[in-house]
Amino acid sequence: MTKDVETVAEPGEFSAKDYHDPPPAPLLDAEELTQWSFYRALIAEFIATLLFLYITVLTVIGYKSQTDPALHPDQCGGVGILGIAWAFGGMIFILVYCTAGISGGHINPAVTFGLFLGRKVSLIRAVLYMVAQCLGAICGCGLVKAFQKSYYNRYGGGANSLAAGYNKGTGLGAEIIGTFVLVYTVFSATDPKRNARDSHVPVLAPLPIGFAVFMVHLATIPITGTGINPARSFGAAVIYNEDKPWDDHWIFWVGPFIGAAIAAFYHQYILRAAAIKALGSFRSNP
Amino acid sequence: MTKDVETVAEPGEFSAKDYHDPPPAPLLDAEELTQWSFYRALIAEFIATLLFLYITVLTVIGYKSQTDPALHPDQCGGVGILGIAWAFGGMIFILVYCTAGISGGHINPAVTFGLFLGRKVSLIRAVLYMVAQCLGAICGCGLVKAFQKSYYNRYGGGANSLAAGYNKGTGLGAEIIGTFVLVYTVFSATDPKRNARDSHVPVLAPLPIGFAVFMVHLATIPITGTGINPARSFGAAVIYNEDKPWDDHWIFWVGPFIGAAIAAFYHQYILRAAAIKALGSFRSNP
Amino acid sequence: MTKDVETVAEPGEFSAKDYHDPPPAPLLDAEELTQWSFYRALIAEFIATLLFLYITVLTVIGYKSQTDPALHPDQCGGVGILGIAWAFGGMIFILVYCTAGISGGHINPAVTFGLFLGRKVSLIRAVLYMVAQCLGAICGCGLVKAFQKSYYNRYGGGANSLAAGYNKGTGLGAEIIGTFVLVYTVFSATDPKRNARDSHVPVLAPLPIGFAVFMVHLATIPITGTGINPARSFGAAVIYNEDKPWDDHWIFWVGPFIGAAIAAFYHQYILRAAAIKALGSFRSNP
Amino acid sequence: MTKDVETVAEPGEFSAKDYHDPPPAPLLDAEELTQWSFYRALIAEFIATLLFLYITVLTVIGYKSQTDPALHPDQCGGVGILGIAWAFGGMIFILVYCTAGISGGHINPAVTFGLFLGRKVSLIRAVLYMVAQCLGAICGCGLVKAFQKSYYNRYGGGANSLAAGYNKGTGLGAEIIGTFVLVYTVFSATDPKRNARDSHVPVLAPLPIGFAVFMVHLATIPITGTGINPARSFGAAVIYNEDKPWDDHWIFWVGPFIGAAIAAFYHQYILRAAAIKALGSFRSNP
Repeated sequence: MTKDVETVAEPGEFSAKDYHDPPPAPLLDAEELTQWSFYRALIAEFIATLLFLYITVLTVIGYKSQTDPALHPDQCGGVGILGIAWAFGGMIFILVYCTAGISGGHINPAVTFGLFLGRKVSLIRAVLYMVAQCLGAICGCGLVKAFQKSYYNRYGGGANSLAAGYNKGTGLGAEIIGTFVLVYTVFSATDPKRNARDSHVPVLAPLPIGFAVFMVHLATIPITGTGINPARSFGAAVIYNEDKPWDDHWIFWVGPFIGAAIAAFYHQYILRAAAIKALGSFRSNP
Repeated sequence: MTKDVETVAEPGEFSAKDYHDPPPAPLLDAEELTQWSFYRALIAEFIATLLFLYITVLTVIGYKSQTDPALHPDQCGGVGILGIAWAFGGMIFILVYCTAGISGGHINPAVTFGLFLGRKVSLIRAVLYMVAQCLGAICGCGLVKAFQKSYYNRYGGGANSLAAGYNKGTGLGAEIIGTFVLVYTVFSATDPKRNARDSHVPVLAPLPIGFAVFMVHLATIPITGTGINPARSFGAAVIYNEDKPWDDHWIFWVGPFIGAAIAAFYHQYILRAAAIKALGSFRSNP
Repeated sequence: MTKDVETVAEPGEFSAKDYHDPPPAPLLDAEELTQWSFYRALIAEFIATLLFLYITVLTVIGYKSQTDPALHPDQCGGVGILGIAWAFGGMIFILVYCTAGISGGHINPAVTFGLFLGRKVSLIRAVLYMVAQCLGAICGCGLVKAFQKSYYNRYGGGANSLAAGYNKGTGLGAEIIGTFVLVYTVFSATDPKRNARDSHVPVLAPLPIGFAVFMVHLATIPITGTGINPARSFGAAVIYNEDKPWDDHWIFWVGPFIGAAIAAFYHQYILRAAAIKALGSFRSNP
Repeated sequence: MTKDVETVAEPGEFSAKDYHDPPPAPLLDAEELTQWSFYRALIAEFIATLLFLYITVLTVIGYKSQTDPALHPDQCGGVGILGIAWAFGGMIFILVYCTAGISGGHINPAVTFGLFLGRKVSLIRAVLYMVAQCLGAICGCGLVKAFQKSYYNRYGGGANSLAAGYNKGTGLGAEIIGTFVLVYTVFSATDPKRNARDSHVPVLAPLPIGFAVFMVHLATIPITGTGINPARSFGAAVIYNEDKPWDDHWIFWVGPFIGAAIAAFYHQYILRAAAIKALGSFRSNP
């Protein structure tokens, strides 16, 4: 099948494209609201974001409690920053894998915003997804606090804020570029052109998306604790509820939304600008 | 082929579904007992659980012996909690991969219980799988103890028990949610609807299932040592045979079974409640 | 295609099997010796084993030099035992991926021995593969020693030997079970029955095989340094050439060969004993 | 489909090969310069290399700042050398995944050089890719420096240079073999023979390529900091701009280019020398 597709896709032959761009999602789609699958998607986003925050914040708190010199003489006793980065990236991998067929597997308002700008989801869906994600994040952090209140408060509650020695511009820049990496990967992985060529891409997409989250955490945990997901930052800020995270909180909405917008622009206007298939050296078919 | 399938699957057209839900497994299936493949599956579950406990408990004991200040001045000399979490998750990945075609690759009574509730396996199969898993876990831990008896006893034998400072409710909650994450991933990965859409999902399923185990260990090792697998907890408790693990032992059966039941309910009654295909933004075909 | 295959494969219908077992490889196949592809396979095994030992032993030496208290005050400055385990597992992943289509991707005399017992390769091929693997391993270790002779000798040359406090029986047992895990995974991943069902398994096989190596290293590095590959142990012993590794050296041939033989027996006589397709709950087609 | 292909590919039947070698790319292809897809590929290489350097150098600086004894008493507070190795390998995984369909996903002048020698890309494309990669690397490092100037300079700017105690020959050798491992994996993953047999290889190729980068970093970070990518070394040297990295800089061009040339030679003249399909034991079809 792959071969047929390729011989059809002569460069320049616009009428015989090997893929179909779905029509842009309407801004307001009243019909959506009548379907059970829409509400099921909201539930799936809520549960997935809840599990995401529960596992990751529990990992952060557990790490900090196990390396606290006041409690343990052994400062290497926890999973390390590397383990925390794995927790964020790995959870996104499995949750995108589990919810991709139900809700599209966003689990992140910045991803939803990017896909809305790319006209992949309607406005109403985008807004309600974000509400579900934020509620899920609050509940996930709430669970961690309910389980171990004293540890939760003592070790910062997994909330995002600027580390000492970094100014707000640096933090904003780190969030913008980090979210760009994530949303660029999401767009690349879910490109309909790619799907036509390799019909099983959707199954493999969650792995690079999870790795993108893992990578960004490795790089920016020392700067902002890494947001790149406004629901994650919002949920932790609501439950931890201290001044410092709230003061910096705008960074974790503005940065990810700008980064997602740039990624949507880059994908739509640069990479997809012409329908001529890239003559990449990976699949150089003459 | 994927495309044909998709055009058939018009939303709402129930008679032309693109997948076949297998009929629910009977509660008691006498015919099963006459087939060699059934006993082969029991052997495969036994061997897989044996290998799972052998490798993971050996990793735990090796880590603790290498970071014991009484033996080594170097506290970074072991694989770390991160390495232990990898051992549990990675073993589940390879064992599910190896046994999926033989026994379904459960290796965990909680997974068997969840799939029984979802009517994927018969009662007789579920019970005998659990017996095989528990026997395998006992033998796996026994091997580790036979190899290095003094280390095994000194370093806790890999047994699960509540860490100091956590009450039973927290431990039970951690086991419930942790098992929910695992069994939810198992249901998502083996959904027949998904299989129809992406015929090679079964091959890829072991990776997210292994990652789910990895993630839960990152988060809850500091609380309970992470069970989410009653056979694993039971085997270690039998061989280690000290009061503390036996006192807390009920948590590692009740918690995983509740978590698996919630995951089965969530999958069957929420996510699969309607046959209308989710209009996910990942594969938005109009 | 998958579906056609499945409807054909009614349980019990032996004449309509959905896969073809290749005939057993002849013990002596003179024709092989006349083909360029045979010598190419030997070269590929030689180069792959050379790269395997070069990268992994360099990682071991680098780790030990960076955590030597005489040189560095910082004892956490290296990649850790976890990094070493990744180096062994990850190299097997990429080398099996690269050489699977050329030589079958053994890179390990124990794997070659197991596949010979399973009649997948001829005797002449098995023997010459092992020679190529051992020569490659010697050259790989030789490269590391040539690069940094003083470090190489000071930090043990990556040679396998029993750690203090373990007797020979424990070491032999650890090698047997560790190799069983590896060769069992190799047989599961390359089963022709599985290939028929999921035609792209061979592409995915290198990942679980690499993970099996990773897992066994996590568990048994504290005991024997982990052999499970006689060529790896032999090459390091030849180049390091001290008494202790030579004294224990038989363990790293006898253990892996016994483990591989058990895995071959388990796969051929237990798992493949009947041609009836497992009614696994993963793909329960009634 | 796989089966049809295989029966056609009788060994020795040259006229009925199961794959088509694309004709060698012309040295100079003026038509390329008229296509938007060519400029899009340059932009994609530029952005990908920028993101690669930004994330990885930020990880290096963050690690060094968090484990600086002058700032923190806790020497386990960073992601570790293992985390740095993951950052390099993981970024190559996601960036090759994202750009493979646009530019071929080189992100490395040594890869471009190897593919040019293998006649997969034209001379003009190779030269302009390298320019785009070097500019991207400079901008990526520049971003890190702009974000945290004092840390960037204090912790070495992620620049490659020989570690104390290693001579230039060792460094050159480490770069040659390291790049050989990477480019050998790239050739294996993108072999058209392989693509014919397993049509979805291109989708899976990024994972072993990323792992190859990860492995080489584990082994050679203690020696040279690991280049194996002249753009990465050049960008960091330009922005850091100190004597030591510039003095050693030739190693990070000469080594990778020699390694890539050997890999291209090995693939074209040894592994692909005869069209007879390897009778590998993995897919032994009689």
